[in-house]
Parts: sequence; C-alpha cells; structure tokens
Amino acid sequence: MKLLCSKNDLLKGINIVSKAVPSKTTMTILECIYIDASTEQIKFTTNDNQLGIETIISGDIIEKGIVALNAKLFGDIIRKLPDSEIALETDENYSTNIICGQSKFTIQGQSGNDFPILPFIEKKEFIEISEFTLKEAIRQTIFSIADNDTNHLMTGELFKITDNELKIVAIDGHRASIRNILLNNNYGNQSYIIPGKSLNEISKILSGEDEKQVKIYFSDNQVIFEFDTTVVVTRLIEGEYFNIAQMISNSYETKVEINRKELLECIDRSILFVNESGKKPIIVNIKDDELQIKINSTIGSMDEKINMEKSGKDILIGLNAKFIMDALRVIDDEKVSLYFINSKSPCFIKDDEEKYIYMVLPINIIV
Amino acid sequence: MKLLCSKNDLLKGINIVSKAVPSKTTMTILECIYIDASTEQIKFTTNDNQLGIETIISGDIIEKGIVALNAKLFGDIIRKLPDSEIALETDENYSTNIICGQSKFTIQGQSGNDFPILPFIEKKEFIEISEFTLKEAIRQTIFSIADNDTNHLMTGELFKITDNELKIVAIDGHRASIRNILLNNNYGNQSYIIPGKSLNEISKILSGEDEKQVKIYFSDNQVIFEFDTTVVVTRLIEGEYFNIAQMISNSYETKVEINRKELLECIDRSILFVNESGKKPIIVNIKDDELQIKINSTIGSMDEKINMEKSGKDILIGLNAKFIMDALRVIDDEKVSLYFINSKSPCFIKDDEEKYIYMVLPINIIV
Repeated sequence: MKLLCSKNDLLKGINIVSKAVPSKTTMTILECIYIDASTEQIKFTTNDNQLGIETIISGDIIEKGIVALNAKLFGDIIRKLPDSEIALETDENYSTNIICGQSKFTIQGQSGNDFPILPFIEKKEFIEISEFTLKEAIRQTIFSIADNDTNHLMTGELFKITDNELKIVAIDGHRASIRNILLNNNYGNQSYIIPGKSLNEISKILSGEDEKQVKIYFSDNQVIFEFDTTVVVTRLIEGEYFNIAQMISNSYETKVEINRKELLECIDRSILFVNESGKKPIIVNIKDDELQIKINSTIGSMDEKINMEKSGKDILIGLNAKFIMDALRVIDDEKVSLYFINSKSPCFIKDDEEKYIYMVLPINIIV
Repeated sequence: MKLLCSKNDLLKGINIVSKAVPSKTTMTILECIYIDASTEQIKFTTNDNQLGIETIISGDIIEKGIVALNAKLFGDIIRKLPDSEIALETDENYSTNIICGQSKFTIQGQSGNDFPILPFIEKKEFIEISEFTLKEAIRQTIFSIADNDTNHLMTGELFKITDNELKIVAIDGHRASIRNILLNNNYGNQSYIIPGKSLNEISKILSGEDEKQVKIYFSDNQVIFEFDTTVVVTRLIEGEYFNIAQMISNSYETKVEINRKELLECIDRSILFVNESGKKPIIVNIKDDELQIKINSTIGSMDEKINMEKSGKDILIGLNAKFIMDALRVIDDEKVSLYFINSKSPCFIKDDEEKYIYMVLPINIIV
C-alpha cells in the first residue's frame, strides 16, 4: 500500500476514528485504525465492539492495500509531523514507513485480517437532523444518564419519535432531562435507547454546523449516524424505557421566574459546602419576591438571596445543588421558570413551549 | 476585626500567599492565611516552614484585628463571589462572616496565636534585579535541578555573585543549566544555594515586568525576596556547591550551528520512541552538512536529517532527548550552537557571550 495525504486530512481522520478505540483491551487489534485503501477510497475504521466508526479521508492512492496501525502511535507521529504532505508505505510484512520531508518513521502494522469490520446494516428507516441540533441536544441531556450500570436502561438516552417530533430523554433515577426537537418531516412512531457513552463520542465528532445534516438509520439492534464522510454504528440498548408522560406534571403550586446566571452563580457558591457524596441539599426558601439559598456544613455556612418573580404559594424545599446547576448551565435563556408542587414533589425547570424540561427530585429536609 | 476590600485585591493577595501553603500537613494552622490588620495595613502571611510569604493588600480597616482562615476555603469563597466589594467580619470567637451583596458566608477562623509568623532578618547585603530577569532566569534553569533528595545540594540552585555578575546554576548529575546575568552594581563575592521548590513558587508570584525590581537580601541561612508589596523568605541549603568552572570546557572538536526550532521539533518527534525511564538515547550523527537523528525501539524507529553548518570533525554521539529539548525550549535565539569534544564528553549548547550554557552528558552507545 502507498498513500499520499496531507497532515491535516490524516489528522482529521485519526481524530474522528480514535473515539472508538478502547482505552483498555486485551485485543491489540482493537487498538488499531484499520486503513482500507483497497478500492478507490481511503477509509479509516475503528471498532470497540459497541461503537464502530468509519470515515473517508482525502488523499492519493499510489498503490492499493490494507493495513492496521496502532491508533495511538500512528496519531502521535502524525500530530508531531510538520504541516505538509505525508507518505504512508506498507511492505508485504506490514512494516509501515511514514515519510514527511526528511523525516522517516517505521512502525510495525498488522494485516487486519482479524479486524472486526463494521456489520452491514440495511438502511431503511431514518430521520434527518442538523449536526448542530443533535450535538446540542446531546450536550443538554447527557449529564443526567446514570454513570453506573445498576439499571442498564438509565445508561442510555431515549430517542422517541412521534410524527415530526424527536424527544431525547436521559434519566438517572433522581432527575430527568428532556429536549423536544421539531423535525422537518413526519417519521411515524418509533423509539430507541442509545448508549450514552456512544452519544458522548458522537457529539465530539459532530462539527456542530447548522447547515450540515445527520441521517440516523435505525435497525432492530443497531443505529447508524451518517454525516459528512463519516459513519458511526452503535448497538441499541434493549428494553422498555420508563414512562415519561407519567413523570411530568403540568400542575403546580408555585412558579418562579428568575435570572438564570444569577441563580447559577449563587448555587455554584453553595457547592463549597456540599459534601463529596453530593447528598447534602441546599435549602431553597421561596418567599414573597426573594429566593433564598442556605446551606450549613461542618466547615461553614452560606446564606444568599436573589430577587425573583413568584406566582402561587411560598415554598421551602431541599434540592441537589449539582443537579440544578447541570440544568441551568445548558439552558440558553436569560430567564428561567421553576415550577414546584410541594416540598416532597419534583421541581421542574422548563420553558413555555417545553423545548426543554428538567426534572429534579427533592431531598427531604428537617424543618 | 472588620475589613472592606475589593474582590480583586483579596484574590491577588490570596493567590500570592497560597504558594506557601503546604499541600500536606498535620498542622492545621499551616493551612491558614494569617490575616493581620492590627496596625494600619492589611497583611496576609503563610508559612510552610521552608518558605514564608507576606503580602500587603489594599483595603479599608474598619476595625483592627487578627484572624487565621483556612487558605483553600477562603480562596474558594472569594473566587466564586462577584467582582465587587467584600466585607470580612470576625467576632470574638473568630467566627468570620464574608459578605458580598446579598451573599453571606460564615466560616470558623482561628486566633492565629500559634501561627509561625516570619522570622525577623536584619536586611544587610542585597542585590537588585528586575522581576522579568529573575523570573526568566529561574524558568530557564529550574528544570535541571534534581527532583529527588539523594544529593540535597542538587535540589537547589546556586546564586553566585562575582562583582556585577550573577550566575544561576542548576545541576542534576546528568546535566547543568547556567545563566549569567549582568547586574547594575558591584556586589563583591557571595554565593548561596536556594531551594528549587522555593524558586519555583517565587517565579509564579513574580509579575515578570521589566521595570519592577526585586531586592534579594541574604543572611547566613535565609534569603529574602522583596518586590511590589510582597516579601518572600526561604531557607538556604547549606553546603559547598560543585565546582562549575571545572565542568565547563571551552575547547571543542566539533561545532554545529543549527536552527533551534527545527532541531527541537525533530527531537520532539523522537521522544515517541524513548522509553519511560528516559534512558534510551537518541543517536546524533553529525556528518558533512547534515545532522541526523535516529532512534530505534520495540515499537518502531525514526530517522531524520536536518541541515546545519559544521566546523571541525564529524561525530556520532548518544544523547538524552528530553535534556536537549529542555534546553532548546528556553533559548530565545533562532540559531543555536552545539559544541562537542568526543562521544564520551559532554555536549554544550551556549551562545557566544555565554549568557547561557547548557551542558548535557552523553549516553554510551554501541556503534
């Protein structure tokens, strides 16, 4: 095999496919980028057996061939080379020369015969969404998936399509994050649970440009994200997701409108007194036109008031500071609305059109 | 005690004195900033028993007093407060309120009776140097002090004054880094060994401005750095430093003039094949008008050539890649000169006026 590529094109490809290289594995072949230049295209593939990524890179194929190169070493070498044309040459023993100007590297490649190339999936049902919208929606929900595996469903995000609406939901047992997205077409009723880890990696690859589209193809146990010259395949999580409608309540006893940044900064200060387990609540006292946040710990205490507009009853409630901050951080609005029923019921942060809904369960406080 | 200060002034003071707060200690008082507003000034002091820092901050003293506050907690609180005026109020039990706008923190302070305030040192002999020059000279040498304590002298830097010249030297047994600085006055002959750890912290505090001066006072076992409104006191290392003159040779068999950046980037690429112990040498082959760098390891090999100008003999020598890079990184010149005697003798990187001299011992290679 012999290829000529620019450093930038190589590096772009390496950065994309590296997201599916497992950090720990006993199978050295999974640590490799599978470089397939056996046809008219240069295709990089990686696969950690849950997530697989393929991307086509620009370059000239002088001699066709296939080789699998250790992703980290190959990436490190390309990264350190000057911004210029790079030649990749592999001999019959897969010894690979990487040549750039007067610099020559030699590393040992593998045939790639045992590389798990991506499964063929028949592309039928799909939805289309902009890279920007998908990247944002993942960022705005992914923090509330469960980070351990006690409930496998909670490690994924629900993608629920109803006609022209896509609902993305993440739940960790203490809170829920929901984004509702309007699609350009009607896609009927479908719902899938996608592993959070895969979505995290996909969101890193997405350019975030509004004018570029992602096609999402679903099959029974896999989902394909297709964008630019890249294809990402991930397994689906099997099972019946939680009943969202049942969790969400539209009735409330107290509604608060408050400056998002002021509230976020105030809660951020309170974090200093939250213990590491995060179980110590902040005490939120909503009274008249002030929202007061208090916290007491062995190392000290905080007490702060913020002006707000309230409709409905006064309320005193204990909340997890980090959960509220996570939601406030990903909301773009200058003002946010908080809804409460009573001190034993969840708090909702949502906009009027319900483009976003954040639900946080209260923590019992002794008053 | 009651003080009124701007967030910026408080934070500036906290950032300066935090450099002498030990990360690990069993004495909780050493984790504190000692705030002394018992006179007309607000003085912050910290002391880890090797390094002590005092700084005067701006602010209004409404009520005089003294309190010791946990440095980390106090710093975290001030950092998170809005950019505005902050009141510090301590009651007779050293319970301290930190008030900013509608935000009130309460933390428990200490009397500070057991705080090790800095020793009084009679200020006699001193030298004067700009903040910029001192900060730079530390940065350009400190990497070659020894990082373990097997030879205590090597954990410090020699400050050797001869008339109007200050020589700063760091040696770790495999290399030496020397900077020669011209002073504005004659200060006779003196030499001191200053702990590298202290110099590291001092260089972080120095503003690096050329027009600001540092006064360095020496006593038998302490040295004081005085600049801006800050005083830093550190113990000296006792003992007789190595004979530098004996290590430096001005004769050579090979002189190479080469582009610094090209050489640095080339060696940086070779680092990929150096094992973690760093003991694997790069092989430098200086022949005709090319400098060739080669390295071979179990994971691959590199071979690169750079154009250069040579006078004297060809030479093949094994060198520690990291040591050469450390020196090249802190040299500002576009071209550097390398001097060699033979493959068993040290390599020198120095400028014509010997403002800087970097010496690196060779590593034996089997040819």
